[in-house]
Amino acid sequence: MPQTERSGCPINLTLEQLGDRWSLIVIRDVMFGNRRSFGDLLSLSDEGIASNILSDRLKRLTAAGLLSRRPDPAHRQKYIYSLTEPSIQLVPLLVQMGAWGRRHTPVSYELSVRAELLEKGGPALWSAFMSELRHLHLGARRPARSVFADLQAAYEKAVARQARSRQ
Amino acid sequence: MPQTERSGCPINLTLEQLGDRWSLIVIRDVMFGNRRSFGDLLSLSDEGIASNILSDRLKRLTAAGLLSRRPDPAHRQKYIYSLTEPSIQLVPLLVQMGAWGRRHTPVSYELSVRAELLEKGGPALWSAFMSELRHLHLGARRPARSVFADLQAAYEKAVARQARSRQ
Repeated sequence: MPQTERSGCPINLTLEQLGDRWSLIVIRDVMFGNRRSFGDLLSLSDEGIASNILSDRLKRLTAAGLLSRRPDPAHRQKYIYSLTEPSIQLVPLLVQMGAWGRRHTPVSYELSVRAELLEKGGPALWSAFMSELRHLHLGARRPARSVFADLQAAYEKAVARQARSRQ
Repeated sequence: MPQTERSGCPINLTLEQLGDRWSLIVIRDVMFGNRRSFGDLLSLSDEGIASNILSDRLKRLTAAGLLSRRPDPAHRQKYIYSLTEPSIQLVPLLVQMGAWGRRHTPVSYELSVRAELLEKGGPALWSAFMSELRHLHLGARRPARSVFADLQAAYEKAVARQARSRQ
């Protein structure tokens, strides 16, 4: 982004580092949806991210050290994207974004149950979730508790409930 | 921003509602710097915000209900900007942005002491700070403790320390 001056303010530098809205949307999808390939990030996008925007943000996030990529052993010329330690540490920030959104924006029921669960779980749950992300993305040991499974189960239950209520 | 689809995800809607980086920079300056006028927000900006960008973001934030404005009784045709309850509730999100920035970006010492203080104070301090913001911006009763004064004192001490170390 064009800019003549920079300040050393941590809020400002965080905003500079994270970039625009789409960057955080991509991180969200890698983190909570475990979407690890360009194809999944594109085709499963709830916001209909455009292919060129996705491609650009993956490049930027990788250059900024917020994502890493490695060749996909199953597909030549394809990559698997992973979170890094700095992006895993975005969990508390993303939880607060979800918490604010639940109160002040017209969220959908099924897409806000995970946000509610994470918010109510507090720092202990965020920490357990970050340990699991380190397992899924950085090759750390698998922790005893799977917060990811709990979040996914809550989400799927909500989706099923919504589907039933629409019949 | 141009967009073909929207999702009801609380993170996505929060990002849509907050808009771009400059919007949060303006909220930060109103919140932590208590800069309440266009002139102060422009001339004291650490990031050198451009006049047209500031003007546009103040309009957007006011339209979105994140700022309110009233005529300045001391200056005809000038306005005083205030936070609203929704923007006051951004405190935990901004604290997490500051916390992340302190760890993963090259922050300056004097601009990060307030972030550190808020992070270490935890939810109890954030809540006290929000009470005080409701006093300063919404006319609520003045709380016993002034977190704002504590943050300001910590900041001024850091600035003085930096100044001494540069002599």
